[in-house]
Amino acid sequence: MRCRKCPQKAAIHMPHHHLPLCREHYLEWFIEQTDRCMHKYGMLTHQERILVAVSGGKDSLSLWDVLWRLDYPADGLFIGLGVDEGTGYSARSLELTRRFAEERGLRLRVVDFPQVYGKTIPELAHHTRRGQVRPCSVCGIGKRHIFNQAALEGGYDILATGHNLDDEAAVLFSNLLNWDIDQLDRQSPVLLSRDGLVGKIKPFCRFYERETAAYALLRGIEYIEDECPFAVGNHTNTNKVLLNQLEAQQPGAKLNFYLGFLQVKKGGWLAAAQQKQAHADLHPCPTCGQPTTNPGDCAFCRLIGN
Amino acid sequence: MRCRKCPQKAAIHMPHHHLPLCREHYLEWFIEQTDRCMHKYGMLTHQERILVAVSGGKDSLSLWDVLWRLDYPADGLFIGLGVDEGTGYSARSLELTRRFAEERGLRLRVVDFPQVYGKTIPELAHHTRRGQVRPCSVCGIGKRHIFNQAALEGGYDILATGHNLDDEAAVLFSNLLNWDIDQLDRQSPVLLSRDGLVGKIKPFCRFYERETAAYALLRGIEYIEDECPFAVGNHTNTNKVLLNQLEAQQPGAKLNFYLGFLQVKKGGWLAAAQQKQAHADLHPCPTCGQPTTNPGDCAFCRLIGN
Repeated sequence: MRCRKCPQKAAIHMPHHHLPLCREHYLEWFIEQTDRCMHKYGMLTHQERILVAVSGGKDSLSLWDVLWRLDYPADGLFIGLGVDEGTGYSARSLELTRRFAEERGLRLRVVDFPQVYGKTIPELAHHTRRGQVRPCSVCGIGKRHIFNQAALEGGYDILATGHNLDDEAAVLFSNLLNWDIDQLDRQSPVLLSRDGLVGKIKPFCRFYERETAAYALLRGIEYIEDECPFAVGNHTNTNKVLLNQLEAQQPGAKLNFYLGFLQVKKGGWLAAAQQKQAHADLHPCPTCGQPTTNPGDCAFCRLIGN
Repeated sequence: MRCRKCPQKAAIHMPHHHLPLCREHYLEWFIEQTDRCMHKYGMLTHQERILVAVSGGKDSLSLWDVLWRLDYPADGLFIGLGVDEGTGYSARSLELTRRFAEERGLRLRVVDFPQVYGKTIPELAHHTRRGQVRPCSVCGIGKRHIFNQAALEGGYDILATGHNLDDEAAVLFSNLLNWDIDQLDRQSPVLLSRDGLVGKIKPFCRFYERETAAYALLRGIEYIEDECPFAVGNHTNTNKVLLNQLEAQQPGAKLNFYLGFLQVKKGGWLAAAQQKQAHADLHPCPTCGQPTTNPGDCAFCRLIGN
């Protein structure tokens, strides 16, 4: 398959966009799409001081790279969680993140959790009931706390995270399964800062995970490929497996699901529909006499009349 | 495993209810639960004339059986769709339905689609663009039309259908994937009659499919086990496969998903949450000074303090 924009061989094909692109045009497209997404949701104005939450994974390093190329002045914050489990997970993640920042002359802040709080995240999880059942939940509380604190203390206006579409769709799915209204209401590409909570943005929320992975690979970013050993089999990941099956059957399903949600939320949820419903005008079909909302014949008579 | 209510061996175990039951107590439980569901959603008052939409499958025949045992006067309506495809699907379905009605002395009405409209449903689907892509959609339009017409002409107050929890959860999932607001607003265990549309009820909406199948089996109802050959691989069925995987990982997930939806809708969707959000009071955590909605220490300090 050829690139849509030049005679080169395509390096990646995005079936939901009907768009095969070569390496060079893909990197260009990806940066342009990030910029568009940030404009659409009013994320940044080039005035803010930005802190990027970096883990050493493909999403956060790609995000830092793209912000840098778009001339958004962003520092990085890495939290050493103390996850080892024989794989040196945290140490290797920090090493890759440091190298990335050095290559680009970017400023990296590091908070070492065990050094500051006297225990690693796995130790903390092990000693609490919540953490024994859901270690990722304990880690999330810790990270949110430290990111906000570091952003406030460092005088940053905004915290940027590398959450991609697969992350957002899985969280949305989970929030809908539980009908967690508070979480549904908070799930957004942009959260404004208020009362000591630094604002948050997710510039990659419209990219599939394979698109951020392709960006990192084609850009030559070295990132940690392994998943955190504690995340294996958690609810978010099992939901991702389900949504991937759905996507395989209905390409674009995840994107529609997430964007449809943002659209509906923006429109004040179902307020519009309920108003419409109240006025929905039923009248007898001129052919069969049964009630219909169609201006002419009802759906059945149109079907039979074919 | 023993029955929860007697020393008999359990015939079925429902893990989400922690309830193993023998044949006799299961049949009793199932009827009682149907009655409760009908009361909860205000479906019937013993005054209405009911028409049950029967297909010859486990759900609709079990529903007709349970309504009969609960002394709700219900006639049945079977639509001959003309589905054959070498399996004699429609003919076998009618035969089983007739036998069921005769055994109980119930009145069965039959509308033969090809006789009335000159072509079978598969033929109609084959001749329309909509039907070529989604034959089930054409069949749905046809059935809704005929059920409503027959109910009106026969002087029935209400149409009862055998939709189970698996059906409702799959439709809900699909409506959420597409954020089909009109459909979400209409999806309900009870639809009141209005302007020539006969009211509809779904007394089995809280039963898992395996529960209705168990009822039919333990009651000795002979039903058509095959699925309609045209339904294989349709979106509803692929969604059911995904939700079954979810249920296997998180028993009760489907029930929570559906009941949570009804609850949220009843509460005027997100209106309550949005109001609450507006007043959500952030104040500094007395220990770390970061903003929290908790009355005392923030989630992080409580975690660390453990």
